[in-house]
Formats: sequence, structure tokens, C-alpha cells
Amino acid sequence: VTLTDRFAALGIDNAPGQQATGAAAESPATVSIPSGPAVDFSHGDVEAFTPTPGALDAFLAAFHAGATQAYSEYRGHAAVREPLAERISEFVGMPVNPAEQIIITPGTQAALFLALSSLIGTGDKVAVVEPDYFANRKIVKYLEAELLPVGLTYLDTDRPAELDLDQLRDALVAGARVVVFSNPNNPTGVVYGEGQVRRIAELANEFDAYVVADQLYSRLIYPGTAYTHLVAGGIRPERCVTVLGPSKTESLSGFRTGVAVAPADVIKRMEKLLAIVSLRTAGYNQSVLNVWLNEPEGWLAQRIADHQAIRDDLVGVFAAADGFRVRPTEGGSYVFPHVPELTVPMPEFIRVLREHAHVIVTPGTEFGPHHGAGIRLNFSQDRARAVDAAHRIIATAKEFSR
Amino acid sequence: VTLTDRFAALGIDNAPGQQATGAAAESPATVSIPSGPAVDFSHGDVEAFTPTPGALDAFLAAFHAGATQAYSEYRGHAAVREPLAERISEFVGMPVNPAEQIIITPGTQAALFLALSSLIGTGDKVAVVEPDYFANRKIVKYLEAELLPVGLTYLDTDRPAELDLDQLRDALVAGARVVVFSNPNNPTGVVYGEGQVRRIAELANEFDAYVVADQLYSRLIYPGTAYTHLVAGGIRPERCVTVLGPSKTESLSGFRTGVAVAPADVIKRMEKLLAIVSLRTAGYNQSVLNVWLNEPEGWLAQRIADHQAIRDDLVGVFAAADGFRVRPTEGGSYVFPHVPELTVPMPEFIRVLREHAHVIVTPGTEFGPHHGAGIRLNFSQDRARAVDAAHRIIATAKEFSR
Repeated sequence: VTLTDRFAALGIDNAPGQQATGAAAESPATVSIPSGPAVDFSHGDVEAFTPTPGALDAFLAAFHAGATQAYSEYRGHAAVREPLAERISEFVGMPVNPAEQIIITPGTQAALFLALSSLIGTGDKVAVVEPDYFANRKIVKYLEAELLPVGLTYLDTDRPAELDLDQLRDALVAGARVVVFSNPNNPTGVVYGEGQVRRIAELANEFDAYVVADQLYSRLIYPGTAYTHLVAGGIRPERCVTVLGPSKTESLSGFRTGVAVAPADVIKRMEKLLAIVSLRTAGYNQSVLNVWLNEPEGWLAQRIADHQAIRDDLVGVFAAADGFRVRPTEGGSYVFPHVPELTVPMPEFIRVLREHAHVIVTPGTEFGPHHGAGIRLNFSQDRARAVDAAHRIIATAKEFSR
Repeated sequence: VTLTDRFAALGIDNAPGQQATGAAAESPATVSIPSGPAVDFSHGDVEAFTPTPGALDAFLAAFHAGATQAYSEYRGHAAVREPLAERISEFVGMPVNPAEQIIITPGTQAALFLALSSLIGTGDKVAVVEPDYFANRKIVKYLEAELLPVGLTYLDTDRPAELDLDQLRDALVAGARVVVFSNPNNPTGVVYGEGQVRRIAELANEFDAYVVADQLYSRLIYPGTAYTHLVAGGIRPERCVTVLGPSKTESLSGFRTGVAVAPADVIKRMEKLLAIVSLRTAGYNQSVLNVWLNEPEGWLAQRIADHQAIRDDLVGVFAAADGFRVRPTEGGSYVFPHVPELTVPMPEFIRVLREHAHVIVTPGTEFGPHHGAGIRLNFSQDRARAVDAAHRIIATAKEFSR
């Protein structure tokens, strides 16, 4: 595999925030595309949902403290890690040693990269859920590992979503050393039931595999859904990496901090790699974690309720639209409707949405090669504008319907 | 090469800021180690030299602007890159296309990692100057490339420091595809003369090799020394990566931002890799670059003068000390004195310095396998405390002298 091949596998043109900025192309003359105020569903709107109270003050306190805050150990300030480990421990339901089992990373993306790079060598086999967060597949390919896909059924809304446990077992039998998945699932909003989580843990234990669980959205769980942390599902702690962070739910993405909880030997490797990748998470930014998992009474419940209202609106709008299929989000702020068959290729539909309807969505192909019928919307947005934009998506699809 | 081997090559225990935090060991009973106020020479003191005026305001403006600032293209906000490219262009003396030839990175460390990873594949040969910034060697090893060392003579203070151009040519003849070096050199403070820079460029051109020039300290050049940017030294721009950033000189390390200027195809690769490594530099932090290369009249001259005063003091103190050898720093804020022969191994001397003399220095072995007689001091410190700590280093060495 040449370096050119490795980078060819890392396409970013369709990734969130990377939409082409060239001149708008002409819309097909025979269709009429509704326009309206721009909505960028590729990420959350930090104005519609503002950052956690106290986040900026925490940053400022670090800046003004000066020398002790500008630099830290590569794994992060001990003074931040210590109370944080205690709060995470309570949240996920297992003891977390602040000195050895936690690392602060420049975003959860970095936590994923460092964890997977610490566990996966050239030619290793890795079980990757599809659809799932797009970077998982890219990282595995960049590491020149072999990707063994594990399906997730989610479109049948009458039944719980299901990870294909037979495919997971097959991947482990075939020699997968690492399993990576997000819960809640990105892009579908599926939350795995306790039975599924326990079964994943059992299989990992049986085959002595590592599991990297991206639990970035595990605080944003809607009423009626129970959440089971992987570490609480029976997995051996020495084989489990949990990725967490205050980003979308808390609207703190602009600070780029994340956290991984992992066995001491894995944290050591992650820290060594962070040292050459970026040294450390920005010193002042780390302190923003002090307000995380530490919000005012009622804050999280309100944030969940506000997101739930938008979810209900959007799911209702797409469910009622001709030919659209959508599963109600159980956790997180994504909805992943499938679009009816169109007379134009999906990339063209998405381009017209962006340039003429002023709605940016992320194509399903980012999340798995067989998920091109879906489009991902991050609904952490202004409610009325989001609903309005959803109607424009539907009207645009209608213009291109067969 | 197994994953275990790759990580074994990434030692960080002696890296700046990573000093063991265990209980202090006993000092040898037969010696008397002077104590004093703690000085950490492993990095600069952002209280002694405060951040560039306006840096915090730039950050706050971005935070309060909200949605447009939290996220950016992976290569960084266009609104930051555009004026910055113009200022960098003026600084380094070549045109820089803001859309294609510049990327904002989470620190210059990330710029180095992304650039080298974009250019070096498994088994490739890389010419690495010794001594030089410790991460260069670690990154090359992590990428499973072959390191071809190129010597730098710097101890003879009567002559200009010299890169061993014969060794560089040998490395290129042997097939080195990439050359990496810092200028000013870290840890010695050497600034390469125009003749040397031109010769490096000629050799790179002759062998069609890439050169990655870490010019992090190129603004902090002391009177009497002329600085030649590599891009102004005749190298073909399509083979040159320049790493720059507002960190130590400007005391902005706590924000972790850096910049690379490179050919468009290299920037594309760096951006793809950044996308999976950390997505982007923290959105709000990027705006701090707006005050960089953009300081109030006279600010930089004053900062250089203040550092020069400390350099003169420290170089004077070490030059006068029995058995110490030191080259006056020509650029940057490092001094790299060689310590006289001791009755204890260097790691023990450094431990005693830290635990009993309360002085933290970085061992020379971090910068090259044959440079264990040197210790690196970042003198971006309070002047009086730095001088006092230098005397404690000398007194401690005397206690252990043969």
C-alpha cells in the first residue's frame, strides 16, 4: 500500500463542514426548488443551543491563572482529570483511576484516533458497525487494517434496532481484534438495548477483543429509552475504551475537548501518540471540562426536552412525507431519513439542496457504503428553521421524484 | 515491526512537562545541593512573558460570534487564513495562496506530524538533523521510516555552527526523500547562515527531496544574526513545507495553534489526516492567529531585547563555570550548555536538580542519541530567577564533579 493509496482512502469532500464552496451551479430548469433561510444540518447550531453555563468563565480562569494552565502533562491537567474521573465514574458506573485511566484529548475525534491507533496494527482485522460515524472507517483504512462490517437494522420502526450479532461473531471468529461502534449510533440515533450491549460485551470477552465505544451522545437520551454503558454491560474493563466528551449536547464543540476512559496500558499508548500528534489539548481549553457533567440542576433535562421537541417535529414531517422513511431518534441529535428514489443521483440532490434550497445535509455514504439512500441531519438547531428546512428537503425530493 | 515496537520507540518520560511526579528520592548524603525558588526550564513561563496583546480579545470575539466560529473547514477558518497568508507571505518572502497553501493546526507539533505523515511512508529514508527537536525523530520512527542522521557542529563558539553537508548529501544519495530540521535549531539556538540554507535548498533540488523546515522560532532572532527563510533560499516551493506558529515567542502556547505553509497537494493530505486525527484546530482558538504577525509597533523588538538580556546573563554564567561549554543562542529561547563530566549518570543529575535544586531541565538525549552531555533550558523566564537557577545547576554539577 503506497502513501498515495492511504490518503486516497481519506476522502473529506462530503464530510460535515467541508461542502464545496465553489460557485453555485444551475438548478435543472424543469424543477422549482423552494428557497428559505439557510440551515446547516451538518453540525449543531451553537446559537440555537448555547454553551453550558460557566464554560467561558472556566476558560478565562485558566487563562488568567497563567503559567500553571498554559501547559499540562500530555494526558491533561491532573487538577482537571481528578474531579472529572469521579464524575465520569458515577456517570458510567465503574471506578475510574484519574492518574491512569483517563486522558483529555483535543476533541472526541482525537480520542477515537488515538485509541484505534493504539490498538490496531497493519493488517489487523477490525469489526466496524455500518452505518456508523464516518471517521471510524477512515481511521481503520488509514491504519492499513482490514475492515469487517457488522450490519445494523434500523429502518423497521416497529421493532428495536438490532446489531447483527451473527456478523459480529463471524468477524471475531475471522480474527477481529477490535470492535468499534457508537452508542447512541451516529447517524441513525439508535440506542442499543441492554440485551444487545451485554451480548457485545460477552462476545468481546469470549474472543478477548477490545471494544472502542464512542459514547459521545450518551447524555442525550430521550424518555422511554434506557441507556446501558458498555462498561456496565459486563465487558472486562481491561478490554474496553469509552470515548466521551462535551461537544454537541453541551454546545462546547468550539473548544475541542474530549475524554477517553481506558485501561492504563492503552492510556499510556494514547498519551505517547498524542505527544507527537499534538502534544496536548489546548491548556486553557481543558478547564472547560470542569463545568461538564457538573451543570446546574435541571439544565440537562431542559436540553433533552428542547431537542426532543425538534426531534418530534422532524420525525413527524419526514414520516408523513411520500416515500420517506425515518426512525425516531432514541439518543443524540441526529435523524437519518431515507429519501425516496430520485431521478437524479444523490450527490446532485444534495448539491441542489445546498445551493438552491439552502439546506446542508451529510450524505449517507459517509456512514457506510450501502447507506446512500439516507441523509443525516443534526437537529441541534433553531426549531422553526429546522422544520422549515425539512419541508424544503421534502419539496425538493418531490421535484426529483420518479 | 509490531505495534508494541512502534510505541516502545515513543518514550515520553523525559519530554518537557512529563517529569516524574513520584515522591522525591533521597539526595546522596555526601553532597550538598543548593535549593531555591522552583524554575521549570522545560518550557517558557507565560507569566514572565505574557501573551501577545489582544490575544484574549480575539478569542472572546470568536466565542461571542458563536455559530460561525465554533466550526470551520478542517484546514481552518478562511477568514483567518486569508489575512494571515498575506502576513506570512511578507514575513517569509514568497507568495502564499490562502485557499490552497496554508493550514491552521492544533499547535506546530501537529503541523510537523501532519506534514511528515503526508510525505513519509513505511521504509522511506528521512534525513534528520542531530541534535534537533525531539519529536522529529519520534515521528519518523512511528511512521516506520528509516532515520539517516545529519550532524550539526555547534560547540566551537569561535566558528559559525555547521550542518554537515557531506552527511546530508550522503543521506540524499542513499535515497532520503525528506529532510527535516528546525531553524533556529532546537535545542542549540543555532541559526543557519544564508550559505548553509542555500546549500540545503540546492541539495534538496538536486535530489528532488522534500524539506520540512520547522521555523517556529524564526521571529526571535538576536542582533548580529541574519535569518534566511528556507523558501527564500532557492528551494523549489513545491518541495518545501514551512512550519510556523505563535507559541513560545508570543507566549500563546496555551491556545495551541500552529500553521504550515506547503504546496497545495501536501496541504490537501495534511487536511485529510487532520480530519481523522482531531477534525480541526479549536474553532475559537483559531482567531488568536489574528493578532499574530500583527502586533503593536515595537512589541517584538522589546520581546527580543528582553530575551537577549536573559540569554546574555545565562550564557555568561555557564561560560564562566568550570567545565561547562555553551554556545550563545542566535535565535529562539533555548540554551544548550554541556555539563562537565560527573560522578553520577546524567539522569540522576537531572533528577537531583529537579527534586533538590528545584530546577527542571530537559536532557540532551531527547534531541539526539549522542547529545547526552547537554541540557536544554528554555530561558523565556523571569530573569533573576533564571540566573539564580543557573547558579544552582552549576553548584550541583560541582558537587558531582570528578
